[in-house]
Amino acid sequence: MIDSLFRPRGIAVAGASRHPTKPGHQVLHNLLAAGYPGQIALVHPAAQSILGVPAYPDLEQVPTLVEMLILAVPAATTPAMAEAIVRRKRARGDLAVVVSLAGGFAEADTEEGREMQEMLAAACREAGVRLLGPNCLGVLDARNRLDTTFLTGNRRDASGVSLLSQSGSIVSWITRECQALPFPIGLNKFVSVGNMADLSLAELVDCLGRDPSTRTIGLYLEAVPAAQPLLEAARRVAIRKPVVVLKSGRTAPGARAAFRHTGAVNDDSPLDDDVARQYGMLPVSRVDEFVTTLATFDRLPLPLGNRVAVLTNSGGAGVYTLDALVSRDIAPAQLSPSTAAALRSLLPPFAVVGDPDGYVDSGGGVGPRQTAQAVAALLRDPGVDAVVQLFVPTPFNSAEDMARDLLRLLPGIRRNSLAKPLFPVFLGGREVLPARRLLEENGMMTFASPEGVAAALAAMLRYAWARQRLAHALMR
Amino acid sequence: MIDSLFRPRGIAVAGASRHPTKPGHQVLHNLLAAGYPGQIALVHPAAQSILGVPAYPDLEQVPTLVEMLILAVPAATTPAMAEAIVRRKRARGDLAVVVSLAGGFAEADTEEGREMQEMLAAACREAGVRLLGPNCLGVLDARNRLDTTFLTGNRRDASGVSLLSQSGSIVSWITRECQALPFPIGLNKFVSVGNMADLSLAELVDCLGRDPSTRTIGLYLEAVPAAQPLLEAARRVAIRKPVVVLKSGRTAPGARAAFRHTGAVNDDSPLDDDVARQYGMLPVSRVDEFVTTLATFDRLPLPLGNRVAVLTNSGGAGVYTLDALVSRDIAPAQLSPSTAAALRSLLPPFAVVGDPDGYVDSGGGVGPRQTAQAVAALLRDPGVDAVVQLFVPTPFNSAEDMARDLLRLLPGIRRNSLAKPLFPVFLGGREVLPARRLLEENGMMTFASPEGVAAALAAMLRYAWARQRLAHALMR
Repeated sequence: MIDSLFRPRGIAVAGASRHPTKPGHQVLHNLLAAGYPGQIALVHPAAQSILGVPAYPDLEQVPTLVEMLILAVPAATTPAMAEAIVRRKRARGDLAVVVSLAGGFAEADTEEGREMQEMLAAACREAGVRLLGPNCLGVLDARNRLDTTFLTGNRRDASGVSLLSQSGSIVSWITRECQALPFPIGLNKFVSVGNMADLSLAELVDCLGRDPSTRTIGLYLEAVPAAQPLLEAARRVAIRKPVVVLKSGRTAPGARAAFRHTGAVNDDSPLDDDVARQYGMLPVSRVDEFVTTLATFDRLPLPLGNRVAVLTNSGGAGVYTLDALVSRDIAPAQLSPSTAAALRSLLPPFAVVGDPDGYVDSGGGVGPRQTAQAVAALLRDPGVDAVVQLFVPTPFNSAEDMARDLLRLLPGIRRNSLAKPLFPVFLGGREVLPARRLLEENGMMTFASPEGVAAALAAMLRYAWARQRLAHALMR
Repeated sequence: MIDSLFRPRGIAVAGASRHPTKPGHQVLHNLLAAGYPGQIALVHPAAQSILGVPAYPDLEQVPTLVEMLILAVPAATTPAMAEAIVRRKRARGDLAVVVSLAGGFAEADTEEGREMQEMLAAACREAGVRLLGPNCLGVLDARNRLDTTFLTGNRRDASGVSLLSQSGSIVSWITRECQALPFPIGLNKFVSVGNMADLSLAELVDCLGRDPSTRTIGLYLEAVPAAQPLLEAARRVAIRKPVVVLKSGRTAPGARAAFRHTGAVNDDSPLDDDVARQYGMLPVSRVDEFVTTLATFDRLPLPLGNRVAVLTNSGGAGVYTLDALVSRDIAPAQLSPSTAAALRSLLPPFAVVGDPDGYVDSGGGVGPRQTAQAVAALLRDPGVDAVVQLFVPTPFNSAEDMARDLLRLLPGIRRNSLAKPLFPVFLGGREVLPARRLLEENGMMTFASPEGVAAALAAMLRYAWARQRLAHALMR
C-alpha cells in the first residue's frame, strides 16, 4: 500500500477544471508543478484535455495505468464514482488507492453526508482499493515528486520530517512556518487523512515507521475515534523514530469544532498528553513548538544525557530561560571544577559561573570571541550533555560578530564536544536574522526563543531516555 | 522626582570614555544620539572634552546645571563618588537624581559589593538625592529625548507604552521584538531599576500612573524583595491604566539566577500570577505575549463585554484557536439568528455557522470579499463584543487580496461595529508579512499567532471587567 500511496505508477483525476479558482484546477496544477514522473489522465465529461493532460469521459476508458484515482468532485457525485471505481478495478485491475478530496461527507453532520461516505468506502472495499479521505488534501511525497494537495510553498528538497494530519489547512500554516525558518525545512512526506473512512492514522504511522527516508514523524491530531490502534502503532515506531504530536480539540468547543471539521469524535479514552507519553510519543502544545521540535530532531544530534548548561550575556534572558527549562523538568548540569576555573579566567570578574548549577552569566560586555570560547569550554565538560547559549545584541557585540566567532570556533567545538547538541538562541526579532542565517547556512541550527529550545530539548531528552531504556532492556 | 528623572534640566556623566567599546562611551553616545536638549558635562580626570562634550576633573567644578548625575564608573570608585555627590549638593544644590549603571554591588553577593551599595545609597540619602540602581541601564524617555541606556533600536516616536524592568538586557530583547512588529511600537518611557537601593518599582509605578502620555504600563519582574508596596501601587494605577506583568524567577534555579542578577530575593509572599491578578495586574507568561499584549492595549479599543466570535478559513486553525481562547476562559459569543442567517446566505453550503457557539468555519475556498463581509456581519451583531479572524493563505486566496478586501470594508466595519476590536490573525510566517504590513500601515492591528491573540484578549477582558466593576461600585 505504501508504494501505491506515495509512488503510484499512474494517476487519474476526476473533477479537473480549466478554471484557476476551482480546487480541481489547483490539484492538477500542483500535480504537474511537482513534476510527477508517471502518466496522468483526466476523467471529464466534455474536455479533450486540460493543461495538456488528456481527458476521457469515463474512468474505465482511461487507457493508461491508474494506480491512484484522485476525486476532486463534489460529494453528490459519489454514486457515479462508486460505480466507476468498481468497474475500473474489475475491467483493468490496476486501481489501488482512491484519494477523495471533497467535503460534504460525515463531517457535514447530515444523513446524506454519512450515506455518501459509507457508499464510497463500501465501493472501495468491494473493489479491494484503499481509500484516503474523504475531506482531505491527499498526499505529498517530495522525493517521489507526488503532490495531490493544494499546499503551496513546500520546498521540494525534502528533510527527514514527515507529517500526518487530520487537518489539511493547518498544514499549509505549518509548512509556511517551516519555510520561514532561517534554514527552511521541506516536508519529506505529508498525508492529510481527512475523515479516515478507510486509511487510518495508525496504519500510516506504521507506513512512515517503515519508510527509510522519514527520520522524524509529526502528527497533528484533532479527535481520534479509535485511539488504541494509533497508540499501538506509535509505540512500535516511537522507539526507532521520534513521533512528535500536536493535539487540538482539547476543550469542549474545540472538540465540537473538530467534529464539524473531520466528522471525528474522541473515543472514550481521549488521547491526551499523558497517554501520548505512555506510548512513547512526544507531545507539544503549540504550532511554533511543533515546528521547532521537528526541525531540531532533523538537524541536531541527540544529547546522551540530560545535563544542560546555560550560558547567557543577558541576566534577564538567563533567568527567563532557566524557568522555561526547569519547568519542563530539564536538569541543570554541574560544571566540573576545571570548567568552572577555565570560565572564571576567561570571563570578567563579575561573571556568574555555576550559580545556580550549570548556569553562566557572562555579562553583556563580553566579546563574541570570549563567548565562543566559553561555549567551547562548556561543550568540552564531560558533565555537560547539551549547551544553551543565549545572546542578546548589545552596543558592544553585534549578532553578526557573535555568529562569525561561533563559526570560527565551530570545527574545534565539533571535534571536542563529541557531537553534543548546541542551542544558540539569538534574541532580538528581525535584527538577528542575518546572523542566524549565517550560522544556519554553515550547518549550525539556531533558535528564536527560550520556549522553543525548552520544548525541543525536552522532547529530545524524553526520546533519548526512552531509547536508552530500550537498549538497557535488550542487553539484559 | 518624576521631572528630575525623565526631564532633568542638566546632566553630568562620570566615567565617559573615548573608547567605543567601553560602556562609558556608549552612554554618552546614546545620550547625544537621543538628542537630549539640555546641557551635558563630563567628569573626567584628564580629558578636556569627549565627543564634543566638555569635561571637568571634579563634579563640583561642573559649571552647568547638574540635575542628574550618571555614574558610568566601576563600583570600586564608590567612596570618591559618594563624597562628590554630597559635596556637589552642598555647594550647588542642583543635584536631584543619581543613576548608577555599574555592576559589582549587592548582586555580586560579596561583602564589598554590599558595602559599596550601602555607601552610595547613604551618600544619596544624606544629600537628599534620589538614586536609581545601581546595576541598571537607567532611564529612557522618548518624548523628552532622554536616553541613558545602552539600548539600541528603540524608535524615538513614542507609543503609549512605558516599561519598568528589573533586567536591563532583557529589555533590549523586548524593544527589538517591539520593533519587529509589522507596526513597530516605540517605548514611551523605560526605567531599568537594577538593584533598587533607593528608587523602587512601587514608586515608579505611581510615577507612570500619573504620567499622562503613558497609557499602558509593562512590568518585567524577577524577584521583588518588598512586594506589598508594589502591589498597593499597582492597585492604585491598574484601575486607570493596564499594568501588564511578566515575572521571571519562578523556579528555584531561576530565582537563584535572579538574585545573582539584581541582588534581589522574593519576600515571603512571592508575587505570583494569582497575587498579581488580585491587585488588578495582568500577568502574562512569555516575552512574545508581553509584547503582543502591550501593543494590543496601545492600538485596539477595549471590548465592552466578553463575547468573542471566531471566523476561520481553516478548520484546523479554528479548532486550535478555540482551544487557545477557551483555555484562557474567553467565552464564545452566541450569534443572533439574523447574523447566522446572513452568514449562511453569504458562505457556501458546507460552511459551519455557530457550531460551536460563536464559531464560523467558512472553508478554504471562500474569497476575500465574502470573508470581509462575514467579518463585518459578525462585528455588527449586538451579541458579539470582539471578532477573531483567522486566515491561512490558500491557492485561491492570497494574504494580500484578503488584506485589500478587509481595508476596502474597513470604514463600513468601523462605522457599524461601535469600535469593537477586530483581531485579524494571518497565519503563515514570513509569507503573510506584506499583507500584515498593508493592514497595519492603514491602522488595523494584525496578529501572528492564536496564542498571542488569546493572551492579549484575556488581558483586555480582565481589564475591561475590572474597570466596569469599579464604575459599578462608584455609581451605587
